[in-house]
Amino acid sequence: MAHDIRVVTEAELRRVIALDAGLVDVIERAFAALSGPGVVMPPVLSMALEEVHGEVDVKTAYLPGFDGFAIKVSPGFFDNPKLGLPSLNGLMILFSAKTGLVEALFLDNGYLTDIRTAAAGAVAARHLAPSQVETAAVLGTGVQARLQIAAAHLERPFGRVLVWGRDLVKAGDCAAELRKILGIEAEVVETVDEAVAHSQLVVTTTPARDPLITAGMLHPGLHITAMGSDQPGKNEVAADALAAADLYVADRVAQCEVAGELAAARARGLMTGLLPELGEVVTGAVPGRSSDDEVTICDLTGTGAQDTAIASHVATLLSGGDIGTLIGT
Amino acid sequence: MAHDIRVVTEAELRRVIALDAGLVDVIERAFAALSGPGVVMPPVLSMALEEVHGEVDVKTAYLPGFDGFAIKVSPGFFDNPKLGLPSLNGLMILFSAKTGLVEALFLDNGYLTDIRTAAAGAVAARHLAPSQVETAAVLGTGVQARLQIAAAHLERPFGRVLVWGRDLVKAGDCAAELRKILGIEAEVVETVDEAVAHSQLVVTTTPARDPLITAGMLHPGLHITAMGSDQPGKNEVAADALAAADLYVADRVAQCEVAGELAAARARGLMTGLLPELGEVVTGAVPGRSSDDEVTICDLTGTGAQDTAIASHVATLLSGGDIGTLIGT
Repeated sequence: MAHDIRVVTEAELRRVIALDAGLVDVIERAFAALSGPGVVMPPVLSMALEEVHGEVDVKTAYLPGFDGFAIKVSPGFFDNPKLGLPSLNGLMILFSAKTGLVEALFLDNGYLTDIRTAAAGAVAARHLAPSQVETAAVLGTGVQARLQIAAAHLERPFGRVLVWGRDLVKAGDCAAELRKILGIEAEVVETVDEAVAHSQLVVTTTPARDPLITAGMLHPGLHITAMGSDQPGKNEVAADALAAADLYVADRVAQCEVAGELAAARARGLMTGLLPELGEVVTGAVPGRSSDDEVTICDLTGTGAQDTAIASHVATLLSGGDIGTLIGT
Repeated sequence: MAHDIRVVTEAELRRVIALDAGLVDVIERAFAALSGPGVVMPPVLSMALEEVHGEVDVKTAYLPGFDGFAIKVSPGFFDNPKLGLPSLNGLMILFSAKTGLVEALFLDNGYLTDIRTAAAGAVAARHLAPSQVETAAVLGTGVQARLQIAAAHLERPFGRVLVWGRDLVKAGDCAAELRKILGIEAEVVETVDEAVAHSQLVVTTTPARDPLITAGMLHPGLHITAMGSDQPGKNEVAADALAAADLYVADRVAQCEVAGELAAARARGLMTGLLPELGEVVTGAVPGRSSDDEVTICDLTGTGAQDTAIASHVATLLSGGDIGTLIGT
């Protein structure tokens, strides 16, 4: 039986979806579904291609109640900049959850991943940040640094952001962009200590392999969203800081203990008990922040559930319209 | 930097590639590459969707010397026939092995998998079947039964084929089709014993969970290609038959010990030593059949290497032509 498959490019996708409160709601529902029964989310298929300085990750999740499920392929080829190409690429394939037929191909070059990742940061801020945030900080100066701060600002409209990065010029560029797009004060700070000390909400977006934030930097009323670590060996928040926090929440424990901040803590014999997941906080199955004085940490490694949710949402937005190319099969 | 992605449908693919000796050579080269250094072939990502009576497998392999690598997604949704849809679907994505950019999307609904799977049977026959095959047999009556016999016939042009299946009507249809497409004698037999006893080459293509072929059925000068088992729990050739054969060859030991015939044997403590792979037989690194009297068994579970090889081959065949839809990104 013939059916049409919609193929949509990054430029077309950018016309129909952006990081906004609606997307945060979609990603929040994904986390809620992830904490319920009937979810099938296999471990990430990860392929390191040392010969060509590349890596490829495949993520997917089946979520009950969603009409489709996505399979996302994310190649990272780190010699690409020498060729004038971006390092990160990729696409999402949306399948019918009823028939397994391909419904749409989103040739997003990682755009949907960028915004669904930022939206998860917003979900974390919504449920875990103190009610009042005057100053936020970001460690790192790349695309996610900007998107994560924009996402957190949707939930906690702070008036000031501090930017820390190893490269002061990049940090300045990042601060300037945040000042412009959010209309808030944005300053570069020279140390991680300074960034954390003056903030109530910190997002870490670096590929650090030696922790940037240690227990001594924690202060009452701090929330940290750690999203940079997504591979074994990466570590932005020290094991002692995780252990010292009042509440640690994983996006998915099974992923965080391999590829997130939790991995380093477990390797030191810390954080070995049963730990809550963001979806459980969203649904209220476990409590989130209980006072404005607590220290909370949310560990985000990125889940196939978010991919399934954003791809399904995009399909709904595109439904009936004429964006993209229809391929008759 | 903009580039074009070629999207090709099953109907278009059927116009450019079929099961023939050229394809067998391509798949033979894939197995040779698989036995060499620098291969990256992660375990199959497998997702069982019990709620919707479905399953999804993702396979991939990076092979040194190939310009691209494929990621293949194979959904099987077993309630589809009730909706008038085929159970099996899927697509292959071809990426540049240099940049990770998507080069082509082959919306093949499993067609490329069908013929690359059959071609692996031909490679097994080329290297392991006795030099003279007068009669071949096939257990099972589906698409692979027909393709595997057509593939084996490319390498050993036998004059007669015996078809065994649990459903005699389907067995009759299968025999009639083989008679027609190959121009050879084709008979239905009522027992597996009969099929094996009179043949020098047997291909098993069933989803059996209780072995069909046992050690007592083996006879000098027999080659068996077992391709039906591709999931834990499936088993077409009994453990004692594997152990009794003169030579057992896996397409990939790491897969066969989980999902192939080898799994059941290993569970019984048999076949525990180092075992050869088809690629090693292809390159001559390990000996294949050493006399026409030996009993040989080749265990095929299907490898991402075959997908990378056929997808790369199709891209070459399409190169410069106007088949498919070009999507500018």
